[in-house]
This record gives sequence, structure tokens and C-alpha cells, in this order.
Amino acid sequence: MQSSIRESVRNMAGYMPGEQLNTPDIVKLNTNENPYPASPRVLEAIRAALTGDRLRKYPEPTGQTFRRAAGRVLGIDPECILIGNGSDDILTILTRTFVPEGGLLVSPTPSYILYKTLADIQGARFQTVPFTPEWTLPTPWPVSDAHLTFLANPNSPTGTALGEVAVTRLAQEIRGPLVLDEAYGDFAEWNGLGLIGKVPNLIVTRSFSKYYSLAGIRFGFGIADPATVRELIKVKDSYNCNVLTLAAATAAMEDQSYYADVRAKIMATRGRMTATLTELGFEITPSQANFVWCRRTDRPVYPLYEALKQRGILVRYMNYAGFGDGLRISVGTDPEIDRLFTALRAIL
Amino acid sequence: MQSSIRESVRNMAGYMPGEQLNTPDIVKLNTNENPYPASPRVLEAIRAALTGDRLRKYPEPTGQTFRRAAGRVLGIDPECILIGNGSDDILTILTRTFVPEGGLLVSPTPSYILYKTLADIQGARFQTVPFTPEWTLPTPWPVSDAHLTFLANPNSPTGTALGEVAVTRLAQEIRGPLVLDEAYGDFAEWNGLGLIGKVPNLIVTRSFSKYYSLAGIRFGFGIADPATVRELIKVKDSYNCNVLTLAAATAAMEDQSYYADVRAKIMATRGRMTATLTELGFEITPSQANFVWCRRTDRPVYPLYEALKQRGILVRYMNYAGFGDGLRISVGTDPEIDRLFTALRAIL
Repeated sequence: MQSSIRESVRNMAGYMPGEQLNTPDIVKLNTNENPYPASPRVLEAIRAALTGDRLRKYPEPTGQTFRRAAGRVLGIDPECILIGNGSDDILTILTRTFVPEGGLLVSPTPSYILYKTLADIQGARFQTVPFTPEWTLPTPWPVSDAHLTFLANPNSPTGTALGEVAVTRLAQEIRGPLVLDEAYGDFAEWNGLGLIGKVPNLIVTRSFSKYYSLAGIRFGFGIADPATVRELIKVKDSYNCNVLTLAAATAAMEDQSYYADVRAKIMATRGRMTATLTELGFEITPSQANFVWCRRTDRPVYPLYEALKQRGILVRYMNYAGFGDGLRISVGTDPEIDRLFTALRAIL
Repeated sequence: MQSSIRESVRNMAGYMPGEQLNTPDIVKLNTNENPYPASPRVLEAIRAALTGDRLRKYPEPTGQTFRRAAGRVLGIDPECILIGNGSDDILTILTRTFVPEGGLLVSPTPSYILYKTLADIQGARFQTVPFTPEWTLPTPWPVSDAHLTFLANPNSPTGTALGEVAVTRLAQEIRGPLVLDEAYGDFAEWNGLGLIGKVPNLIVTRSFSKYYSLAGIRFGFGIADPATVRELIKVKDSYNCNVLTLAAATAAMEDQSYYADVRAKIMATRGRMTATLTELGFEITPSQANFVWCRRTDRPVYPLYEALKQRGILVRYMNYAGFGDGLRISVGTDPEIDRLFTALRAIL
């Protein structure tokens, strides 16, 4: 059967998700999950959905209830919203809708490594454009003929973010759609929602795995003009979001005040991390997300990743051609971060 | 943005899922959901997964816990199992793995209309091969060079099923993989699990939406040789199944005795439906699934679909070029089916 597999798939390495160790006492700072639990209203909503025969029946194909709630909270037309089984599902749907086999997918580098995987699966070419040393985009943008351009904003692993002027200019410089991947957008100072309807080739994507503390339930959504969303709906699986996830996502979206409090705690801890890790000799990029990107010039960081893991602290080691390597460390709870500091002091 | 959409997507109509009316008193016999609730152990498992911080963290990427449970129950190697966000997710992954843009996807007709949608999204050609009047496959099978061949078994909308000899012969007659779509396989007299490892180009897919009464939670799985499953894992979204769905599916798989009882009730009701609907003038194909395919020669059936809907009974009207139309009626509870009989008697 191997010989029947498409060459692009056979030749690809496959995306490696961050390690998911289930050791009970581990401090998990490697996949940018929110260290605080989801809103209690989310649990209530899931419990409510467990009564009656909702498990037995197919869920709402386009998630009308979630779309109406999100439209109300975010001040956008519900018809602009595409529901996804995680924002990875949205990124997959976008790739399949816009990028033909042999087409071109472009992203700045270093950035989210899944974009290359999506190009590989589609049998498309993937081209990267390096960020400038100030983490801005080169002017002019050198690839105008991409079928799809992904811009993670805030970016991972750097945590840096571009503002309205830079995003609008990039969208104008390219021919195809610009996907503003705002998986971390809820932590940022600015986001692109206000540009929907104004910048015609802009699509924004959001995740519930970070800000909403719901990585386990898999939910994300896309925002684009209604005509484009109608096309994207043709490409998604008919029932791509299950009934419990839809109930959870709707409840989370409607409890903004809970998440504003969680955000404030994460911002405060991120401030402590930036200060202490700098003190410990790391070079920290100012982050607008729930993680910090830590590099060193005085010693290699891979042994630090390993030494931390031995002490039960999991961070993400990342290495990018042309940019070198670093540790991406998620913002944890204060006790978790204190354990990180103690371990690093012992190791260094 | 419309002009950036791939032509194959722009030109396609999009799959229309069966109507999901939420009128409280409606008798819903149009999408083959199980009329009985899922095992009580499923609800317990979901409630258990709601404690702790499992919602907050990413789920198991390959669903190891489910794979081990299913391997044990079905007597197969867990490495042969691919988890999916509904069996539609598995069918999508298979299409993306084996069918290039411009490639060829083949299926008998009349059958599951999603297969054409999957070909359209991929930008592939779709070719159908008519069943014989006895609902068997033509000999020899006329299209040997498909990149992927889908065989729904039992078939929808007919409910008919092929046995080991016919399936094995078809697999041998074609070059690419044969996907035996067993969404209704748990209701059938025979299934293809025993052929995995013996027929090298065979892949079996299963759904939890019918037999396991869990359409709302979206789960399905594929079974193939481990080397093929490793390639399919590269194509699936990293975290395609959420933590609650995985808990539910594992609990359902482990409660086979509950579902054997449900199956017996459905078989008994299907027998009553076949007898009474025949008495009422329908031509019924002997069904091995949880629905019956009802045709008439004496009068058009579309007005019957409409008259039933007006009386709060939803069945599926289907029309296939070259085969004509009919009503696909799901097996409901006995009181639901009694309401169907009463309504039909009044209408006819």
C-alpha cells in the first residue's frame, strides 16, 4: 500500500507536537497551555449538554449558537465566523481552499512550524521570508504571488507582534489571502478583528487552546467576509465540531470577565519571568503572548532544556536554520515559575 | 478574495448534511442516529474527564488509550488504528493521503454522496460504477486505476452488504487502496476486520455515530496495516480528537454488552418496519443496517416525504441519476415507528 501514498506525504517528516508527558508532578511549560483552569461556566455548560439526548444526535453543522454568541461578544456578523476543531483545523481548511497542489504557501521565519507541514500535505511549495533583526517584516515584502500567506501574530516562538500598519501593508503587497494567525491574539496589545471588511484579503484565526484554557476540547474559529466563509464551509467536514466542544466554547466566549482576570495574572507572571530570566543571563524578546523566547550567547541552550527536563520541568527547545536556537517557555502559575527559577539557578 | 479560491472548490455545490430540525416533538428518522441513548458508562467517563485539568491540556495526539482499548476488544494490534474526528475525518485523511489533485476516486452508485464531495475538494475526478440490479458488484470491476476506491458496506441508502468473497475480489482487481466504509458495519452479518493484514490494500473505517449512539461527540476510526497508519497520522491534524470524545469512545468500546442489547432492539424494529412498509406498498431492499430503503412504483415518493414532514416525521428523500428515488428511513424506537405507520396509513 506504501507505493500508493502520494509522494509529498511519503517524503514528509510529519509535524511533531510538543511532548505530552503525563508524569503527575511535572511542570509543563512547553506547549503554551493556560496554567489556570477554564471558566467554571464551561464545566456547567458541558454538564448541561450531557443531559437529554444531545450526545446521540449530530451537532449543529455550522455552530450557529456559538456564532451568534461570538458575534455578540466580538461585535461582528455571525456569518463572518467559521468554526473549527481547533485552530489547526481552520488552517487546514484554508490551505485546502486556496492552495492547489504545486501551489505556494509563504510565511515569515522563524514561526509556527505547522505551516510547512500543511504545505507538504497539500503537495505545495513552502517558502519562508526571514523577519528583520527587529522582528519586523522586510520592505518591500519579497513574495507577492503566494496562494496563501500565513502570519502568526503574535508570533511563535518569539512572542513579538506587528501592528495595524504593518499587517495592512503586507495584505496590500500580496495577491492571495493573508491569514493572520491570532492563536495568541487575545494576549496582544492589538488584533486584526477591526480590519475584517476593510482589508479585503484578510482572514483572522483564533484558538481556544491558549487564552480560553481549553486545549483539551479542540476549538478555534476563523473570521472572514461572509462570502469567503460560505466557501470555507464547503471544505470543512460537515460536523467538524462536537456538541460538548460547542457548548464549552460558547460558555467560555460569554464569560469574558473571568478570562480578563486570568489574563492579568498571566501578564504579571510574564513580567516576573522576563525580569528574572534576563537577570539569569537569557536574552528575552519582549513578548505579547503567554510565553517568552529565551536565547543565550554565552552557552548552548540544549543542555539547559535537558537539565530542566531531568528536574521535571518541560520547556520547548527550538532550532531554526539561520536564526539559531532557544527555549520557548510558557507562562505558568507563580509557584511553577518559582520552581523554574530555582532549577535554573541550580543548573547555571 | 473569491478569485483566489481554487476552481474545484468554487465550482462545487458542497455536501448537504441531513436536516437537523430542533422542533421538540419531531420524529427524526433521516440521519440514521441510534434512537437509544449511549451507554451510561459513556456519561460517567465524560464526567470523570471533567475533573482535574484535562480540559486545559492538549489531548493524546494518537489516542493511545482508545487504541489499546479497541485493540483489546476487537482483537487487533493498536498500531493498526487511526483515530478520527468522526469517520468523515478518516475519509478526508484517506483522500488527502492517496489522491493527488487531478487523481481518480471511484465508488459504486448509489452510495454515500460525501465521496464525490471529498473528490471535489481535493480537485480530483470522481467516477461511479453502478451496482447490479441484485446490488452486487459488476464482474470484472471496470476501473482498476483509481487512486482510491470507496465501498460503503453495508451501503447507504440501500442497506445492502457484500460478503468476504466479493470484497476480497474487488481489492484484488484494483491497483490502489480499497476503503471499506463500515459506518454501519456493526449492524451487519459480516465485516472486514478479519481481512486486515490478509488483503494488503484494504482499509476499514468505523463510525461511532450509528451503533455507539454518539453522533454528537464526533468519533470514528480507521484500521489498516501499521506502516500505512503511520503515514495517515502525518496527514491528520495533530490533535484531531478531543479529550472528552476520547474518554467517551473508550468507554463505549468497552461496554459491548450494552450495545449488543441495543442492536437486538434495532434489529427487531427493523423487522417490523420491513414487514409493515411492504404491506403499505413500498419495495424494501433487505437491510443489514439501521435504516431501510423504501421505493414505490405506483406513485412518486417525494410528496410522501413532504406529507410526513408536515406531520412532524423527518425521513431522508434521495434521488440518484440512473436509479431513481426513494425514502431512506432510520430505525427509530417502537413508538416512533408506530407514529410513522399511523402517518403513512393516513397519507396513503
